[in-house]
Amino acid sequence: MLGRVLCTVLFVGALPSPAGASQGHISVVLLGANGDLAKKYLWQGLFQLYMDQVSSGHSFTFHGAALTALEPGQRLMFDVLKKLSCPPDEAPNRCAVLKDQFLKLSQYHQLGTAEDYTALNRDIETLLGQEGLKEAGRIFYFSVPPFAYTEIARHVNSSCRPRAGAWLRVVLEKPFGHDLHSAQQLAAELAGFFSEEEMYRVDHYLGKQAVAHILPFRDQNRQFLGPIWNRHHVERVEVVLKETVDAKGRTRFYEQYGVIRDVLQNHLTEALLFLVMELPANASSAQELVQHKLQAFQSLWGLQRSSAVLGQYQAYDSQVQEELQEARGYVSTTPTFAGVLIHSQSPRWEGVPFLLTSGKALDERVGYARVLFKNKAYCPQSGTLRDAGHSQCKPKQIIFHFGHGALDAPAVLVSRNLFQPVMPKDSWKEAGARSDLHIFGQPLSDFYMYSPVKERDAYSVVISNIYHGRKDFFITVEHLLASWAFWTPLLDSTSRQPPRLYPGGVENQQLLDFEMVPGGVAFTLAEPAELLNPGGQTPSDFRAIQSKFRQSPLVSGWAEELIARLASDVEEAAVRSVARSGRFHLALSGGSSPVGLFQRLARQHYGFPWQQSHVWLVDERCVPLTDSESNFQGLHRHLLQHVRVPYFNIHPMPVHLNRRLCVEEDGGAQLYAKDIVALVANASFDLVLLGVGTDGHTASLFPRSENGLEGAATVVLTESPVKPHQRMSLSLPLINRARQVFVLVLGKGKHDITTLLSRVGHEPRKWPISGVSPSSGQLVWYVDYEALLG
Amino acid sequence: MLGRVLCTVLFVGALPSPAGASQGHISVVLLGANGDLAKKYLWQGLFQLYMDQVSSGHSFTFHGAALTALEPGQRLMFDVLKKLSCPPDEAPNRCAVLKDQFLKLSQYHQLGTAEDYTALNRDIETLLGQEGLKEAGRIFYFSVPPFAYTEIARHVNSSCRPRAGAWLRVVLEKPFGHDLHSAQQLAAELAGFFSEEEMYRVDHYLGKQAVAHILPFRDQNRQFLGPIWNRHHVERVEVVLKETVDAKGRTRFYEQYGVIRDVLQNHLTEALLFLVMELPANASSAQELVQHKLQAFQSLWGLQRSSAVLGQYQAYDSQVQEELQEARGYVSTTPTFAGVLIHSQSPRWEGVPFLLTSGKALDERVGYARVLFKNKAYCPQSGTLRDAGHSQCKPKQIIFHFGHGALDAPAVLVSRNLFQPVMPKDSWKEAGARSDLHIFGQPLSDFYMYSPVKERDAYSVVISNIYHGRKDFFITVEHLLASWAFWTPLLDSTSRQPPRLYPGGVENQQLLDFEMVPGGVAFTLAEPAELLNPGGQTPSDFRAIQSKFRQSPLVSGWAEELIARLASDVEEAAVRSVARSGRFHLALSGGSSPVGLFQRLARQHYGFPWQQSHVWLVDERCVPLTDSESNFQGLHRHLLQHVRVPYFNIHPMPVHLNRRLCVEEDGGAQLYAKDIVALVANASFDLVLLGVGTDGHTASLFPRSENGLEGAATVVLTESPVKPHQRMSLSLPLINRARQVFVLVLGKGKHDITTLLSRVGHEPRKWPISGVSPSSGQLVWYVDYEALLG
Repeated sequence: MLGRVLCTVLFVGALPSPAGASQGHISVVLLGANGDLAKKYLWQGLFQLYMDQVSSGHSFTFHGAALTALEPGQRLMFDVLKKLSCPPDEAPNRCAVLKDQFLKLSQYHQLGTAEDYTALNRDIETLLGQEGLKEAGRIFYFSVPPFAYTEIARHVNSSCRPRAGAWLRVVLEKPFGHDLHSAQQLAAELAGFFSEEEMYRVDHYLGKQAVAHILPFRDQNRQFLGPIWNRHHVERVEVVLKETVDAKGRTRFYEQYGVIRDVLQNHLTEALLFLVMELPANASSAQELVQHKLQAFQSLWGLQRSSAVLGQYQAYDSQVQEELQEARGYVSTTPTFAGVLIHSQSPRWEGVPFLLTSGKALDERVGYARVLFKNKAYCPQSGTLRDAGHSQCKPKQIIFHFGHGALDAPAVLVSRNLFQPVMPKDSWKEAGARSDLHIFGQPLSDFYMYSPVKERDAYSVVISNIYHGRKDFFITVEHLLASWAFWTPLLDSTSRQPPRLYPGGVENQQLLDFEMVPGGVAFTLAEPAELLNPGGQTPSDFRAIQSKFRQSPLVSGWAEELIARLASDVEEAAVRSVARSGRFHLALSGGSSPVGLFQRLARQHYGFPWQQSHVWLVDERCVPLTDSESNFQGLHRHLLQHVRVPYFNIHPMPVHLNRRLCVEEDGGAQLYAKDIVALVANASFDLVLLGVGTDGHTASLFPRSENGLEGAATVVLTESPVKPHQRMSLSLPLINRARQVFVLVLGKGKHDITTLLSRVGHEPRKWPISGVSPSSGQLVWYVDYEALLG
Repeated sequence: MLGRVLCTVLFVGALPSPAGASQGHISVVLLGANGDLAKKYLWQGLFQLYMDQVSSGHSFTFHGAALTALEPGQRLMFDVLKKLSCPPDEAPNRCAVLKDQFLKLSQYHQLGTAEDYTALNRDIETLLGQEGLKEAGRIFYFSVPPFAYTEIARHVNSSCRPRAGAWLRVVLEKPFGHDLHSAQQLAAELAGFFSEEEMYRVDHYLGKQAVAHILPFRDQNRQFLGPIWNRHHVERVEVVLKETVDAKGRTRFYEQYGVIRDVLQNHLTEALLFLVMELPANASSAQELVQHKLQAFQSLWGLQRSSAVLGQYQAYDSQVQEELQEARGYVSTTPTFAGVLIHSQSPRWEGVPFLLTSGKALDERVGYARVLFKNKAYCPQSGTLRDAGHSQCKPKQIIFHFGHGALDAPAVLVSRNLFQPVMPKDSWKEAGARSDLHIFGQPLSDFYMYSPVKERDAYSVVISNIYHGRKDFFITVEHLLASWAFWTPLLDSTSRQPPRLYPGGVENQQLLDFEMVPGGVAFTLAEPAELLNPGGQTPSDFRAIQSKFRQSPLVSGWAEELIARLASDVEEAAVRSVARSGRFHLALSGGSSPVGLFQRLARQHYGFPWQQSHVWLVDERCVPLTDSESNFQGLHRHLLQHVRVPYFNIHPMPVHLNRRLCVEEDGGAQLYAKDIVALVANASFDLVLLGVGTDGHTASLFPRSENGLEGAATVVLTESPVKPHQRMSLSLPLINRARQVFVLVLGKGKHDITTLLSRVGHEPRKWPISGVSPSSGQLVWYVDYEALLG
């Protein structure tokens, strides 16, 4: 058979302008040659490659491979190849000849054992030797389940590397792991076999024409987009992939992955990044692109459970039970629908919602990325005037329409009241107006609309990019890990959360509508069960419970709810205090426990009267304020940076005077004490937030401290048993003058001290926290379940 | 005649349940009895008052008054009274009887001379005496041109005050002045005659039912509005009054006032304040309301020329020429259309645009205030799903419809996807659905819609409020002056600006569409003249010109353009510097000149890399940092407060150490110098902004200063000839190390020093500014036309 193939290769010389085989020979090995993906897209893509490149000067052989034995494997594969279709823009005669050749150049291999790989390599070498061909390179396309990656990689590396001077390209299909850890593991394993340069990780969305054109569009339309591509003009960014099909027949895969891993972590994230990353000065520099994409990941706020709404179509459980032979009562929490809200902290996008949505069993099949602009105009005559979309009061948007949907094709749409975009004439053409169609409630005539001159399947583009070595169209390892680092916290925090069930199709009605709420997103309609009981009470925002601890009120809950409640209580105290006195004096502790509180106050408490608030430190480490160990630095990073406290109202502790740290004679403690007396009425803070150490310390008041547990001093220098040893701290008597003291205790690590404290009395020398007892103020404990219950 | 009137009063006793005259007698004097307003609204309002209050226990007489002689005045007035109409909800018989009585109780007076007023008073006294009536009070309704106010007020005060124990209510119609100064003058004059308690300044919009219901609506719907009545949920607020009529027949008045004084300063501002003011805990406390309204004024950003777009209908000039007998070529700049963008700096509304729009000769007559909410939702099925307005993806708004327009009635509309509002059932009823009508592009069925149970004319309501002494429905003097203080800068800055001409009616098409642009609003379409020349160049953003001054580049222009250009150049320097070094070290001067720059940078330069910028002071006065004289305080108020410079990057000069100011041995100057050396590479600032004093000083380096003009010291203490004398300043040698130095010179007062500087050489001891000459950096002068040309 090989001989026949070779004859054909040489015979190709008779076709129009083949530059012989002077560019060398390329062997393409498709692993998983009879799998779904190969059948549907990859063989057709390889055939397209052959048609495009037959005259390139390269010669080709195509090797389908799988575990199936030779004879049945061969039959299966040639059944597929016989059905390869000719693209409409190809002359039928030429295509028929080329298809015949393609079939002759293709052969099937059973690849299982190490010997099989050696044999494959020998076949290739024999061919090259017999025909005196120079080797250009080898492509190994892994269209196999991920568990097979390592094994195949080992064999390819040890037995199938090309001759010196020729390249190896290993093409990997997602999933690349199922979370950060597994992706790191897989990356490390593969790195043992291939260099990063050799690996081509496919996200076929990067081959979709409308997705691939996002960056060129931004680059070619800089003059228009420059002024408006930012938070002042963009209202929201949506990236959406809706499917009508469900997971039937694929539940073995799907049950392990779910919608977030299946399409959000990769496809939708890629499209989003193209939209929101900073555009490099040189948009064609692959290296700059990768750097800017990574920076875009860095600028995204971390996801948490409340960042997403999850759904599952009702038939899913029974499909899983059937296909995976699970028991009747088996309940899966795998989401088949997700809506995720992402925020960036970059100056360009701060505050602009990025909404990623995808689901199976929805009412239509469509994919798009859409940038919706704010309406900045007032049009006195808008009610009575009709125009062709030019009014500034009509919605303004840019849509990259991936395919399907009402348009049933890839397209780029730009509202006519925005600008007429620059589009490359060789690849995109202005589409004819179809006035009957509407998109997002607007007639198509409101848009400049472009469609590809030649519509190409994503995998054809991917395979062409592999052939051309366009690594910028593939996922680098840093990029992959950044994406998993971004998505894994959400996956972890939602893994056991029951998704909302939806019937599927148009029956879903408004059941999957979701909206942005403080802290994330939530379904608009209450759970259907609750809908049946409209007279019932709406559940409280906070599931935190209340009782007593050390004779004072205790608020308890899981950490997230507890912090939500604490943040609300702090805001309420602030509002009350400002109403009473015009000011709010807040003293905050450092450390890790309050970080969640700071972040929540910074991001979700818009009504907080920061303008009237003074922020003081409860304690400080004797390090420069800009040191990462500084309590103030943490407070600044997580809170002050994000809110508008007047400069004069921010009171870091003066631990750094005369270029030295906490020297007694510099009088830093006295200075802070004087500031407090000067600004805080009766030196009584409106609210002091404390934590507790495992040794019972609070603020920087440690057991048996010589300073600060009693006496007249209000601000003291103390010694910590752990580094940095020197500290400055408010004293216990000063803390006890406060109107309110909140103590926050989080985590299993605090269980022992919490238990102890529940039993002991007032013994501040042993456990300074036990001395917190406001003389006329209120003390409230916020202790999470882990600290309380262990 | 008086006798007849009295007989009638006593005869009234026979009507249903008059409680006699035990509540006392009220004399209503309508000055300007035959004027337009009286004819159209006031007499009808007084008749309504009589119908409503005939059984209240008060007796009434109504005195029309004007300059017209008795006999013709009488005739004119009774012609009006005869045409008074009966409201539809009044029994025709009762109304006829009451109308007859009302006519009998009404008489005309010629009021010109002091004697006339004495006579009027005598008439009233005689009546009271003859009939043994207790006097309850007197209402003097000034429906006269404002120039007549003082004269009439003097007479009323000296001759017509009621008896002891009875009240006096003087009702004043706008215009109350035409700018802040004239309003203050008028207020001061009137205060010489009447107490504030006695004066009722009418804004009849407060009598419009939909306007008057804004605050009660907010109060009664606190539970729904609480979470959404803020910048996180509200997209914009519009207050609009469109008229189809033009100013024909009223140009004598209109030419002096224009649309802003006519309706924006008063009516639209009132409606806006109702929407955006903080709601007092007790919404019925008049005093709290006034306080909160004043606070709302305080929270608004000042208006400037670019805050408004102005138009004038094309026929206006010829109407003015005809009515005012002006020459043919007379050109008026009085605007008949205005769109104004207002911003608040309150935490609640920061960033939310308030758009006020009004004009004559527009396409329809309608008035409304509209709060449009942001779309926070994503609805997977929105394209295919129809519902009755409940989808969260449909627009959400609350509309207070003042009248006219498609609804042709007052109404309150709330989108059904917001909430079903609480409305007082006795005064507002749910309106029947009229599915044929649309409002703002939505069918009425998308709204909960309410209309008044009984529609009442605004002036009837105003007159009823006067009768009931409801001072909270009138404009207090503080409120009036606050409003003028707010509007006057815009009026001044636009007084000579030619408005855009518009044809009038539907012909205006999109000519008056305007949109928000950096710094304000602008018409969307270029001037029609430019439209005719689409190939022409678009005008540059900045009209500033460039040449040379003292051998360095000079940028010049009118102050506003110059500052716009300077702000852009500063931003550009910042972006360049951050790209180069990752940091931008900016040293800023204090004083009044840079305030405009600070405000512009704070409000219009969203791309400024503040996160990477360090802000230093060029000089400082030796006062506490929080003192209003402190340069840092000004910089904080106008700039730092509004942008996000990290706390650590803000470098106030340490003029206040050890609780004392600029004491040599505290080493503040050395401290600052050390900070500069530690943070600024080569102690070379990226940009230093300087000003120039009339004596040629710059920074705080004064002529013949002992420190800072030369030598090694980089930061010095200096002496100013003016208070506060002590200063801290960067030295000239340090300034000259900078990469860029921009010198800003503004105003006529700087013309002499500018002229001088253009001639002298390098003489820093005489004129320190002449010593600014960066050794390897760039110096640019920004001098406005007034400083340059005098």
